[in-house]
Amino acid sequence: MELQKAIELFKKTNAEAHAYNHVIGVLYYDQETAAPKNASMGFASTMGIMSEITYKLMVNDEHIEVIELLYAHRDELDLITRREVEEEYRELAYMKNIPMDEYTEYNVVLAEARDKWVEAKNKNDYSIFEPLLAKIIGFNIKFAQYQHSELCPYDYWLNEYEKGASMKMLDEFFSKLKSAIVPLIHEISEKGNMIDTSFIELSYPISVQRQLSDYLMNVMSINRDDCIIGEVEHPYTTNFNKHDVRITTHYYENMAASSMYSVIHEGGHALYELNTGDDLIGSPLAGGASMGIHESQSRFFENIIGRSEAFIDYVFPEIKKLFPEQLKNVNAHQFYLAVNKAEPSLIRTEADELTYCLHIMVRYELEKRLMDGSLTTKELPSEWNRLYKEYLGVDVPSDSEGVLQDMHWSGGSIGYFPSYALGSAYSAQIFFNMKKELDVEKLVSEGRISEIVAWLTDKIYRYGRVKTPAELIENACGESFNPDYYIRYLTEKFKGIYNL
Amino acid sequence: MELQKAIELFKKTNAEAHAYNHVIGVLYYDQETAAPKNASMGFASTMGIMSEITYKLMVNDEHIEVIELLYAHRDELDLITRREVEEEYRELAYMKNIPMDEYTEYNVVLAEARDKWVEAKNKNDYSIFEPLLAKIIGFNIKFAQYQHSELCPYDYWLNEYEKGASMKMLDEFFSKLKSAIVPLIHEISEKGNMIDTSFIELSYPISVQRQLSDYLMNVMSINRDDCIIGEVEHPYTTNFNKHDVRITTHYYENMAASSMYSVIHEGGHALYELNTGDDLIGSPLAGGASMGIHESQSRFFENIIGRSEAFIDYVFPEIKKLFPEQLKNVNAHQFYLAVNKAEPSLIRTEADELTYCLHIMVRYELEKRLMDGSLTTKELPSEWNRLYKEYLGVDVPSDSEGVLQDMHWSGGSIGYFPSYALGSAYSAQIFFNMKKELDVEKLVSEGRISEIVAWLTDKIYRYGRVKTPAELIENACGESFNPDYYIRYLTEKFKGIYNL
Repeated sequence: MELQKAIELFKKTNAEAHAYNHVIGVLYYDQETAAPKNASMGFASTMGIMSEITYKLMVNDEHIEVIELLYAHRDELDLITRREVEEEYRELAYMKNIPMDEYTEYNVVLAEARDKWVEAKNKNDYSIFEPLLAKIIGFNIKFAQYQHSELCPYDYWLNEYEKGASMKMLDEFFSKLKSAIVPLIHEISEKGNMIDTSFIELSYPISVQRQLSDYLMNVMSINRDDCIIGEVEHPYTTNFNKHDVRITTHYYENMAASSMYSVIHEGGHALYELNTGDDLIGSPLAGGASMGIHESQSRFFENIIGRSEAFIDYVFPEIKKLFPEQLKNVNAHQFYLAVNKAEPSLIRTEADELTYCLHIMVRYELEKRLMDGSLTTKELPSEWNRLYKEYLGVDVPSDSEGVLQDMHWSGGSIGYFPSYALGSAYSAQIFFNMKKELDVEKLVSEGRISEIVAWLTDKIYRYGRVKTPAELIENACGESFNPDYYIRYLTEKFKGIYNL
Repeated sequence: MELQKAIELFKKTNAEAHAYNHVIGVLYYDQETAAPKNASMGFASTMGIMSEITYKLMVNDEHIEVIELLYAHRDELDLITRREVEEEYRELAYMKNIPMDEYTEYNVVLAEARDKWVEAKNKNDYSIFEPLLAKIIGFNIKFAQYQHSELCPYDYWLNEYEKGASMKMLDEFFSKLKSAIVPLIHEISEKGNMIDTSFIELSYPISVQRQLSDYLMNVMSINRDDCIIGEVEHPYTTNFNKHDVRITTHYYENMAASSMYSVIHEGGHALYELNTGDDLIGSPLAGGASMGIHESQSRFFENIIGRSEAFIDYVFPEIKKLFPEQLKNVNAHQFYLAVNKAEPSLIRTEADELTYCLHIMVRYELEKRLMDGSLTTKELPSEWNRLYKEYLGVDVPSDSEGVLQDMHWSGGSIGYFPSYALGSAYSAQIFFNMKKELDVEKLVSEGRISEIVAWLTDKIYRYGRVKTPAELIENACGESFNPDYYIRYLTEKFKGIYNL
C-alpha cells in the first residue's frame, strides 16, 4: 500500500470513529439526562451492536495494515498525524488482543451495570449490583492479561489511566501524603468544631441553584453557545467536539454547596475541552491528555480557585443576591470557612479538600485487592466500611452512602480513582508555577478567570493529546512531577484556616 | 446462498439498521432539545458520515443478494419476516437508484437546513433559508426521477407518504372538503364574534403548564416510564422502540392552549408507538403504518377526543385547580367553546379544527407548483401570502408567521402536509365506527381513555406496519376510506357549536 493511500484511509477511519464516538456519547448523555426509565433495554441492545461495529472498524485486516505501515513510517509524518498514529497503534494493540464477542459482551454488561447500579443505590441493595461488578472486575483482569504485558492487571490499568502510574509509585505517593495530612487532620479535630456550616445546610430552592450554576459558568468564562449543563444522578462531563461540551450536576435542596462545587469541578473539565487547539478538531488527539491531567484541571478550579478566599470574595455578593434569606447574617469570610471545613465524612464528592485523598486511598486499597483476587466483590461492602472507619473514623450507615456511592466501577473504570489524587497533586504544582507568572489572587479577586484560562490554554489545553502528560507537566511547571507541592499547598492552606 | 443463511443475514442487518436509527434519532432529539448552539457543525458532519454508513449498510452486493433472494421466496416466510422483506425490498429499490454521494450530500443539506430554518425564522429573514430549500426541492425532484416511476415527482412523493395518494385523488378530496367547509366558515363569520377566548390569552406560568402536560399525559394513559416529554422549537414525536418514546412541546406563556393541544396531539402519536405489538420489538415493522395513519391518531386525540365537550368536562376541574386565577369566572362549557372557536388565522398548528384544512390546502398548492417547476423558492413567500389571503382571508405580516412557520420543508418532507388532512379524515371515519362498539362519550367523560386506546390497539396499533394503511382502515372501519365522514363530523360539530 502507498503511504499516501494509507494516510487517506487512516483519516477516513478517524472521521468515522469520531462520528461513532459522537453518537454513542450522545446516546449515553441522553440516557443519563433524558431517556425514559424503560429505555434502558433498548440502550443496552444498541450499545452492544455499536460496540461490535466500532470494534470491526478498528480490528480489520485493512486497518491493521494501514496502522502498521504508518507506524513504521511515523518519522515521515507531520506531528499531528504522527501522534494520531502512535495513539491508534497503542489502541489497536489493545483491541486486537480482545476477542470481538468478549469486547461486545463487556459493553453490554456496562450498559446493564449502569442501570443496576442506579437501582441498587436507590434501593440500598448492593446485591443488585454485585454480580455485575464481579463481571466487570473479571473482564478488567482478563483484558489486562490479554495484553501480554509484564504488568499485573491493576498495574496495567493504572498505567493506562496515567502513563507511569503503578502500585509502587502510588504506594509511595499515598504514604507520603498520609504521613503529612493525617497529623494535620488530628490537629484540626483537636481544635474542635470552630467553623459554622449551618447556613449552607438551609433550604436553597433548586430553581435558584440553577441560576447560580449559570452565574458560575459565566464567571469561569465558559461560552454557553459551546457548553450546556444537564442534570443527572452523578455529575460528569462529556464532549463531542470543542463546540459541544456538556457538564452535568445534581441539585440537592439542602446542600447548595454540593452543586456549586460540582459545577466548578465539571466546569474545569469543560474549559480543558473547550480550549483545545482548532487544529485538532475532528482528530482523536482532541481532548484531555490523560485522566490525571483532566482531573488536575477540574480539581484546580474546584479547590485551588473555587475554594480560595479571593474567589469567594468575588462571587459572594452575587450568591447573597440569589439567596438573601439564607445568607442574611453571613459574610464572605464565613462562607469561605464553611466551604473549607475539614472534617472526615462519608461521601467522596462532598468531601473537603484535605480529607478527600483519604477517600481515594480507601478505593485504591480495595481496587488493588479486587484485582489481585484477595478480595471478592461479595466481601467488598464490609471491607469498605472497615477502611472508612480506619482511614476516616466514620461509621458507614448504608451501602448507598458507602460502596455504592460512586458510579465509576459501574462504568468499568478500575484504576481511575487514583487520577483524582494525582490530578490534585498536579494542580498544586501547576498553581505554584503559575504564580511565578501571574498574580493569580488578584486576577481571581477581580473575576478575571479568563486570563488564568488563557495561561492554562497556552501551557496545556491547546495541545490536546499531542503532548504526553509528563510533557505537559514539564511544559507548565518547568520540571517533572513532584508531589511535595501538593503537601505544601494543603498544609499552608489548612494551617491558615485553622490558625495552627 | 441458502435461504436460512439469507434470513440470518437479513435479521442481522435489520438489527444494525435499528441501532443506527436509534443513535441517529437520539442525536437529532438531542440537537432539538439539549445541544448547545454551536453543536450544529459537529451535528451536520456526523449526520453526513452516518448517512454514508447507513447507505452502505443497505446498498451493498451481499445485502442486495439477500433481499432479492428473500423477496423471490417471500411466500415461504412467516408473516412478519415476509412483510419485513417487502418493506426492505421497496426501500432498497429506492436507495439503489440514488448515488451514495448524493444521498450523503442530501443528508448534510438537511442537517444544515434545520439550523438555517431556525435562524431564518428567528430573524424573520427567508433569504437565509431559501438556498437550502431550493436544494431540498431539487433533491426531491431528482430522487423521484431516479426511481424511473411513471409518476411525476410530486405524485411519487405523495404516494410514498401515503400509498394511493396522488394529486388527482387529493384534488378531489380537497375540492369536496372546500365546497363543504367554506360555506360553513362563512355562516360562522356572519354570526359574528360570539365566543370569548380572552381568558385563554392570559398569562399561564410555564412551570404550571408543565404540570398540565404531566396531567394530560396521565389522562391519556401514557406510561411515563416509556415516554418522556421534551421542550423544542417545533413539537414532534420520535421513538426508538416501544419503551422509549419522546413527545415534545413548546410553551408560550400567553397561549396555554397551544401547548395543551400540542401535548394531546403528540400524545396521540405516542400512544400508537407505545402500543405496537411486542412481537415487533426490534423489527422495521414496529411503528406507524404511514404518515396518514399516524396523523389520524394524533388528530383523533387532539380534536375528536381532546376538543370534545366530554373531555373538557372531565379535565376542566384539574385545569382550573392549576390555574385558579386565570379561570376564576370560567366554566367548562366556556372553555370548550374557547378551544373550538373557528376563525381563519395565520399559524397552522394553532388553527381550529375547521379552518385547519385550508392551511393544508395552501401548502399542497404550493408544493405542487414547487415540484413541477412552475414556482421557484424565491417566489414562494409572495405566493404563500397571496394564498393565505385567498383561502383564509388573512394578511401575513411576516415570513416568520408565514412561509417559515413549519419545520417540515427544512426536514426534507415535501408531500407530507396532505397526511394531516387525510389523517383527520381517517380519524373521523374511525370515530364513527368506534362509536358502534364503544360509548365513546361516556368513556371520555369518565376519564376512561385507556379503553379507547385498547380498542385502537386492537384495530390498528398492534399491527405496526404489518398491515398496510388501507388494510388498517378496512380493519377499523369495516369499509375502505371515505372522506364523507370527516365532512359530516365537521359539519355536525360546528353547526352545534354555532347554533346553525
